Amino acid sequence: MMPMNRQVILAEKPEGVPTPGHFELREAPRPVTPASGVLCRTRYLSLDPYMRSQIAGRHPSGTVTPGGVMGGETVSEIIDSDARELPPGRLVRCMGGWQEYSVHAAGEAHLLDEDIDSPSHALSILGMTGLTAYAGMIWQAGVEAGDRVLIPAVTGAVGSAAAQFCALRGAEVIGIAGSEEKCRFARESLGVADCIDRRAEDIDARLGQLCPDGVDVYFDLVGGKLLHVACTHLANYGCIVLCGLMAEYNRAERDPGPAPGLLIAKRAIVSGLVVYDFETRREEYIRECLPLLRAGKIHQHEDVSHGLERAPEAFCRLMRGENFGKVLVALP
Amino acid sequence: MMPMNRQVILAEKPEGVPTPGHFELREAPRPVTPASGVLCRTRYLSLDPYMRSQIAGRHPSGTVTPGGVMGGETVSEIIDSDARELPPGRLVRCMGGWQEYSVHAAGEAHLLDEDIDSPSHALSILGMTGLTAYAGMIWQAGVEAGDRVLIPAVTGAVGSAAAQFCALRGAEVIGIAGSEEKCRFARESLGVADCIDRRAEDIDARLGQLCPDGVDVYFDLVGGKLLHVACTHLANYGCIVLCGLMAEYNRAERDPGPAPGLLIAKRAIVSGLVVYDFETRREEYIRECLPLLRAGKIHQHEDVSHGLERAPEAFCRLMRGENFGKVLVALP
Repeated sequence: MMPMNRQVILAEKPEGVPTPGHFELREAPRPVTPASGVLCRTRYLSLDPYMRSQIAGRHPSGTVTPGGVMGGETVSEIIDSDARELPPGRLVRCMGGWQEYSVHAAGEAHLLDEDIDSPSHALSILGMTGLTAYAGMIWQAGVEAGDRVLIPAVTGAVGSAAAQFCALRGAEVIGIAGSEEKCRFARESLGVADCIDRRAEDIDARLGQLCPDGVDVYFDLVGGKLLHVACTHLANYGCIVLCGLMAEYNRAERDPGPAPGLLIAKRAIVSGLVVYDFETRREEYIRECLPLLRAGKIHQHEDVSHGLERAPEAFCRLMRGENFGKVLVALP
Repeated sequence: MMPMNRQVILAEKPEGVPTPGHFELREAPRPVTPASGVLCRTRYLSLDPYMRSQIAGRHPSGTVTPGGVMGGETVSEIIDSDARELPPGRLVRCMGGWQEYSVHAAGEAHLLDEDIDSPSHALSILGMTGLTAYAGMIWQAGVEAGDRVLIPAVTGAVGSAAAQFCALRGAEVIGIAGSEEKCRFARESLGVADCIDRRAEDIDARLGQLCPDGVDVYFDLVGGKLLHVACTHLANYGCIVLCGLMAEYNRAERDPGPAPGLLIAKRAIVSGLVVYDFETRREEYIRECLPLLRAGKIHQHEDVSHGLERAPEAFCRLMRGENFGKVLVALP
């Protein structure tokens, strides 16, 4: 019998918030090991908001069209290899996608750093997620002790890492999250000074109370109206790092940005962050983060679903903002 | 007879583009020299777009209401002094406003640098105007040889200085101006590689031709739609310095800024510039600029009207974009 490969494809392009019905599980022949490449079995699949953008055809990393396999970064195990430096049994980071098996050219499969104790961390705190948070807040915004930092989606994958990095630097972090439970988690586990429940509280009024002298750094992971509200609370010479657009991924229309006059009056510095630009500094980041992780100074909350068939549901929860921490799918 | 002081007051708050009828010439008693201060006679009055913002009540430097004397920076001659360091006969830079005489505390009248050959230059190329251009392009944007710099209102006061500073650094400057005559002037006298006539040409299409690899630095002196067009032509890692809002000074509504998703994709750096922040570096700027000016490497085109009664008309021409270079009023 031909060896098979279970995959999740995009069945239909969603208009708004996707539902599991927009995806479909199918079987395809398992691919064969390419010359000088590897055949891998997926162990962990990372689910990320940018995937909604790929579906919409608006992401620089590529587009997924109906019938196509959903893309995504994975930690996978090499099960067959035609590349000497990539021996079977080793774990790699690769763009395996939403499927059980994937094949890669040698240059596209990256051996996991042997210092990484938990393989899933290569996709979360020690992977793209953590790197995004660190690059945005520490390298790009230059957060320092005493800075007041505002982080939305603070219990999400990037937000929770960013909050912890900033708090460890001595910054005063204000989080924003979507429920009282999330706010409590942020206060108790992420080192934030306070957290605003965006569904139950008036963010504008609360920011006025919590940051009467303004916000020094806003890590924009969501876009939408919140960016404008945050901007009015920005301190003079404050900084906004634009990184994500969660508020508009599920919509066709694009929100405009803050009025230039407001940015002038505040001498704001607004900069766009694309984590791929920091790929060359991944090792440096891991060296910074590993000791913190091992010393228990940084925690990574992972929201793990088990089985490829659960991926659509887990992704849709993420798109509804119902996840807690980094969303991963573990394959047996 | 009581000595008098001719002044221009705001007669009525304009809704759109102001006309001379919104202003009124009146006579008031000449003020007397304050203790430890000076009485000055205005020699040159600077007219600037920010004044429209003061009338609208939207400028951090203050608001002018109907009945009030229009404010503005002047070069004035000390005619009476109760401050030893400010002797009669010397010229000072001060906020004299649209009037013949003004009084100032000693700390608010700044002796003109004796190296300044032409007093009007203290308001134009060696004053706030030149400082704005230099701070924005050289200090804030860090323009270097080979950069492609886009400058709107390029024959205006700040634009023409900025274009020359950038071209002297070896940047390739593309200007935008409001007539074929202005474009010709920019090409012939400001060192720009090319200039787009915003009234006769399709800016978007022309930018695509002139800067196929994108614009590295956009000096936003105008806001409005042009900011959005410029943003779509920004090169990756390009930089936008927000400085003026000419396109919206005459309107009540505020334009939103570029979409955050576009800024992220381009890794843009957008920053607000307020020239007052660079006051402490004015001397340093003058030391940089004076040799260039004396060597004929930088030119300042001044658009001078004669007589206080011409100020409203000159200001309205400025607000219609009909000026050429720095708008000044010379008083006898």
